[in-house]
Amino acid sequence: MTEPTPFQTPQQKQRDREAKRQAVLRAAVRIFNKQGFHATLLEDVATSLGISKPTIYHYLGNKEQVLLTCVMTGLEQLVEASEQARQEPGTGNDRLRKYLRRYAEINMDDFGRCVILTAEESLSEAGRAEFRALKRKIDHALRELIEAGIADGSIAPCDSRLMAFTLAGALNWPARWFSAEGKQTREETASLMVELLANGFAPR
Amino acid sequence: MTEPTPFQTPQQKQRDREAKRQAVLRAAVRIFNKQGFHATLLEDVATSLGISKPTIYHYLGNKEQVLLTCVMTGLEQLVEASEQARQEPGTGNDRLRKYLRRYAEINMDDFGRCVILTAEESLSEAGRAEFRALKRKIDHALRELIEAGIADGSIAPCDSRLMAFTLAGALNWPARWFSAEGKQTREETASLMVELLANGFAPR
Repeated sequence: MTEPTPFQTPQQKQRDREAKRQAVLRAAVRIFNKQGFHATLLEDVATSLGISKPTIYHYLGNKEQVLLTCVMTGLEQLVEASEQARQEPGTGNDRLRKYLRRYAEINMDDFGRCVILTAEESLSEAGRAEFRALKRKIDHALRELIEAGIADGSIAPCDSRLMAFTLAGALNWPARWFSAEGKQTREETASLMVELLANGFAPR
Repeated sequence: MTEPTPFQTPQQKQRDREAKRQAVLRAAVRIFNKQGFHATLLEDVATSLGISKPTIYHYLGNKEQVLLTCVMTGLEQLVEASEQARQEPGTGNDRLRKYLRRYAEINMDDFGRCVILTAEESLSEAGRAEFRALKRKIDHALRELIEAGIADGSIAPCDSRLMAFTLAGALNWPARWFSAEGKQTREETASLMVELLANGFAPR
């Protein structure tokens, strides 16, 4: 091209489309988290962005499909965090703490919150199977991190399955109570909670 | 009365009514927990007991009212457990551990599970206010137990609010994963989890 042109290149079109899709997804997840899936109408999401409902269908599909995309986005963030943690230097305990902090931070953010707040029954059967497969992967990664720490002596010997459930539960729950308007940031809250879990409540 | 009689006394009638009400409530909570509130029809509850839907209305009201009664029953079990814990002998740490075990056991049972699985949006506005008031009472009791243990030196000094949220989250979560068909009982699971939380994952 030698002339200035108001027409987009295919790359620009692709970027533009992706930015719009992300904006729709972010607006949807916030409304689901606030109102609950059942009480949310795609109309509400459309209104919040000044667009029409068919535009949402165009980018993300129907309400069940939008929810599934929100939930899968959150789960993928968790999977990515577990893969990063595995490659960190330090002891098993260092890697576990780092992963738990990131895990908690994700659960206090939009997509992670949606994973925790979503009742499986709200997903279609196919969606539920995908959801469970990723969840199992995440549970498994957490158990592996705990076991690696037990093996190198940096984590106290324990039932790794029950420890994984205990840690995950503690760090899932902020999805229900954390407020970004509170006195502690996401990162501070995550870090403090992980230290409480590492040290326990009995005096050392 | 001097003759054997097929007619019930008022006391018998009252007991009979209460037993029927409890049976309906137990059937309802199990179906809510299994299918989710939105996917449950009172028809399903009626069918499971071989009764009609109007019989459920008679004992417990409409679907929202049935849910509220289930949730309030669970919350009252938790309040009762906290009141008992306060009167136990021993250190603050002993009382806290005892309460946490009971707290976890309730959350693995029908009504406690319903408290955890219920999204606030499913409750009417009046119901939500009652729900929140009891939840605050329970949160407050947990913080008091932690603070009493810090005061007598049996619990490590910490941010009691964040510790309460951390412990509660860990012990709420079994509502989502515990199965009575697994290898550990409710009581064993509760006890093991509380020890993990007391000792932490860092070696002592």
